[in-house]
Amino acid sequence: MTSWYKNPAKQPSESAKINAVLRQQELTKPVGSLGMLEQLAVQLCSLQDTQEPKADRVAIRVFAADHGVAAEGVSAFPQAVTVEMIKNFIGGGAAISVLAKSLSADFSAVNMGTAVPYKAERLIDCAIARGTKNFCIEPAMSAAEFERALLAGKTVISDVVDRGCNCFVGGEMGIGNTTTAAAMACALLGETPEHMVGLGTGVDKQGRQKKVETVKKALELHCADSPSLEVLASRLGGFEIIALAGAYIQCALEGLPVLVDGFICSVAALLACRLNPGLRVWLIFSHRSEEQGHTRVLSALNAEPLLDLKMRLGEGSGAALALPLLQMACELHACMATFAEAAVSESEILN
Amino acid sequence: MTSWYKNPAKQPSESAKINAVLRQQELTKPVGSLGMLEQLAVQLCSLQDTQEPKADRVAIRVFAADHGVAAEGVSAFPQAVTVEMIKNFIGGGAAISVLAKSLSADFSAVNMGTAVPYKAERLIDCAIARGTKNFCIEPAMSAAEFERALLAGKTVISDVVDRGCNCFVGGEMGIGNTTTAAAMACALLGETPEHMVGLGTGVDKQGRQKKVETVKKALELHCADSPSLEVLASRLGGFEIIALAGAYIQCALEGLPVLVDGFICSVAALLACRLNPGLRVWLIFSHRSEEQGHTRVLSALNAEPLLDLKMRLGEGSGAALALPLLQMACELHACMATFAEAAVSESEILN
Repeated sequence: MTSWYKNPAKQPSESAKINAVLRQQELTKPVGSLGMLEQLAVQLCSLQDTQEPKADRVAIRVFAADHGVAAEGVSAFPQAVTVEMIKNFIGGGAAISVLAKSLSADFSAVNMGTAVPYKAERLIDCAIARGTKNFCIEPAMSAAEFERALLAGKTVISDVVDRGCNCFVGGEMGIGNTTTAAAMACALLGETPEHMVGLGTGVDKQGRQKKVETVKKALELHCADSPSLEVLASRLGGFEIIALAGAYIQCALEGLPVLVDGFICSVAALLACRLNPGLRVWLIFSHRSEEQGHTRVLSALNAEPLLDLKMRLGEGSGAALALPLLQMACELHACMATFAEAAVSESEILN
Repeated sequence: MTSWYKNPAKQPSESAKINAVLRQQELTKPVGSLGMLEQLAVQLCSLQDTQEPKADRVAIRVFAADHGVAAEGVSAFPQAVTVEMIKNFIGGGAAISVLAKSLSADFSAVNMGTAVPYKAERLIDCAIARGTKNFCIEPAMSAAEFERALLAGKTVISDVVDRGCNCFVGGEMGIGNTTTAAAMACALLGETPEHMVGLGTGVDKQGRQKKVETVKKALELHCADSPSLEVLASRLGGFEIIALAGAYIQCALEGLPVLVDGFICSVAALLACRLNPGLRVWLIFSHRSEEQGHTRVLSALNAEPLLDLKMRLGEGSGAALALPLLQMACELHACMATFAEAAVSESEILN
């Protein structure tokens, strides 16, 4: 039996795409003058098979988990912050909570496994273990845990689809997870830790060097035997990152456009695309993070993000900030008048 | 008597700025992780003298006018398009009309003087003449017309303030106005036409060369005698560009934050800052246009815009697209929890 995540992604509509390109040329503006918003509108028309695309019912899910590698002292913050921030997500005080409210989004946090277990009424509980193991010493998770994390992402998206959402934003939180993401990106892209490790939430130069050494150790321990993609991801992954990959894959299977956040979400997207290449077209990249490895991950995904605001917060915050651009690209495409409708003269050069 | 536009700009609050910087450090996120949104929040707090800044009541005014230089064949579109697009603004079919509706903005177009006169009930009429004169042959406008155009901008803003708006977006429309803006920018910055002239609404290489020659001719005719700023602007300006400069100055006098659109609006902002240097702090730059001269104008203004979406439409569209970023920066600043409020542990390095 084929694993669920190998199922073919939904095919975007080629005819909706062609019609969208034609419509963009008929709208009352110089051809191409809306820049990236025109490509965005065409992509959304193609994905939703319509000339009236919408991104007005957005689900935001923040996946949180702890990382065994935190024991190596790779973060500026203590591990307790993962649960503290989950409480802050629910309580409405975190950046993504404020943005979700501002956007009238359908917002939830998902506990994928924190070092200190934490449950709450308004928290989706998919906890797999008390965080991953320290991948400098042993595999981060078992093969079964990897499958469960991936499946948790699928389940979350099935629910999002049932709620009638037309756009998905994933976010992440987990002390140590820029180190995890850097290790995964190095393994997937054959990059060196020096290029992929950044300052995370704000370590100093010495802290960054410690992260580089930590990732090096992990790569030496886990990559020498050229493991399969799944084995690699289980050895180096984080529960929230694997869940995001599963969520992205399910979005592509269900036909739900995805707005990808920053570095960590992009690494999840990279893993998802490797597991299921057909999903790439369902991903819209929201912003370029200050985390230095992000640009290389974006290049590998042939992605040109919408925003570059020098952000490095995570939580899905960059994707949330880019959402109005999607919404306005949709409205411009559907609601602008054509040259004929508005009786505006067309370009003398092009016509 | 001092001209009204030389009056001192309102002073932003230094104490609100300091308190905003402190608050940004206390919010539940790594310090600096919201990137440019943090600076934006601090600027808005300082401008509005509050820790609860707002950009939720936005006035968008699109100033339209014709340009005598259109006779030189510098645009891809016929001059009739200026009035046709004014009708499109009012009719709701133009990009800025769609965006204004999406943003629930207070939207109007302003006729500053079209070649064929046009009035309508929902159009603010400030027409000064049937377009400017061709500045390749004579001054674009008289000193009195310059004063009237500047004053029209002031009057429009007085009305916007009376309506209780807390943010201003100016837009422009006028066949030939990238040539006018390029000539003004060259004169103000001592730049060469080759650096400042772009493709506008979409001329070809030959068309661009014609624009370069046109601007050269204008600069030779009007700049040799080192005229005053006002005389220079009257010789090379456009009614909508001068009105925008007047509007920006009045915003700074009244204490209304401005979101500046692309190339042409930035040239108006440059003129406004030269006429009244104290206004610079009231300007927030929304996007980097594809029009090649924009980057040099932005540099001269020491401006780092929020968006870079390869747009070149004008109408205020780039500023409208950036508006949700201002609104979300405000909400993050006012509504996020502090570390103390949310009982989240702070960084071990920084504390």
